[in-house]
Amino acid sequence: MDSKRIEQQMRFLAEIDQMKAVYRQTLLIDRSRTETDAEHSWHLAMMAMTLFEYCKDPSVDLLRVLQMVLVHDLVEIYAGDTFAYDAEGNRTKAKREKEAADRLFTMLPAEQGAAYRALWEEFDSVQTPDARFATAMDRLQPFLNNYMTEGHSWQQRHVTENQVRTRIGMIEDTVPEIWPCVERMLAECVEKGWLIPGDGNPQDLRNR
Amino acid sequence: MDSKRIEQQMRFLAEIDQMKAVYRQTLLIDRSRTETDAEHSWHLAMMAMTLFEYCKDPSVDLLRVLQMVLVHDLVEIYAGDTFAYDAEGNRTKAKREKEAADRLFTMLPAEQGAAYRALWEEFDSVQTPDARFATAMDRLQPFLNNYMTEGHSWQQRHVTENQVRTRIGMIEDTVPEIWPCVERMLAECVEKGWLIPGDGNPQDLRNR
Repeated sequence: MDSKRIEQQMRFLAEIDQMKAVYRQTLLIDRSRTETDAEHSWHLAMMAMTLFEYCKDPSVDLLRVLQMVLVHDLVEIYAGDTFAYDAEGNRTKAKREKEAADRLFTMLPAEQGAAYRALWEEFDSVQTPDARFATAMDRLQPFLNNYMTEGHSWQQRHVTENQVRTRIGMIEDTVPEIWPCVERMLAECVEKGWLIPGDGNPQDLRNR
Repeated sequence: MDSKRIEQQMRFLAEIDQMKAVYRQTLLIDRSRTETDAEHSWHLAMMAMTLFEYCKDPSVDLLRVLQMVLVHDLVEIYAGDTFAYDAEGNRTKAKREKEAADRLFTMLPAEQGAAYRALWEEFDSVQTPDARFATAMDRLQPFLNNYMTEGHSWQQRHVTENQVRTRIGMIEDTVPEIWPCVERMLAECVEKGWLIPGDGNPQDLRNR
């Protein structure tokens, strides 16, 4: 038994408890507070396993997807959450997250830390079929919570329909069968005034 | 495309957002509040993937274990969390959870709901190798958080060393390589007064 190895892993497992204290913009559906990264990651994993049947690419490996969504936000323990529609925050995000990864993943035994880091980098690059499906779930989850809370975090940041369309568009490519349902939800959000129509130009507003 | 099926799944995915509002006894390591079921489930999943290498039984399937830990507490949305050392609550737990399962899993398309329910029942019976490994993680996670918070939830309920030993004993059978590390942590908890020694009898106290 390699007790140093186990102790490294235990320390890492205690360190990542901090995922329960990184608050995101997304409101819980009961509106009691915003969700944490740990909660978001769990919700994504549940979405991935529940909607896996609609994944267009037959090469997608559900085990890898679950592992990827479980680790995909770990770097935010140190780098913080960056809201999808925060242009300023997104400019410094890559650097902050790389530094966080250097610090966090090196807590683990070398090959395990490298494997977790590789999963995070794969997610972040959105190139492989596994990462594309995982990202589709990562786009769908806050969309669902926004839909259920009358667009709470969109309204706070004056997010427009077209910003959301750009962000969630990949759901159509990756899990096309659920897209009509997502489209209906999106239309309802605009219709009910939870999302600014089009690009938010006066013309877009007139056309509604 | 079966839009009714997708809508059922979306409603289920919105319903389980309530896992973020079921609070457990376990304190976050930063002590800011107690953790939620969603956070606990995510932490278990991270433990399972990180410590899988020590799983004694080679037949254990990590994908099934991850799915099992993700769904294992879903019934608590309606049944509430029952503290492990709450004798009264544990008397009514089975009935409350069965009623919750009848209500929750029937939200899903029939065969998917049955599959989730089967995973939960398998976890709950602690008989199969997958369920035994998942349960070992479910015992280890609050133990780790208690260790890191000076026995917070043990102290609140006057939990004794032997109660904890009984509860976490299966870690030794399932992931024997990590047991010496857990034993050291347990000894430290007793030594530092975070856990009542032995059965809490005057003799146990004298022997320390």
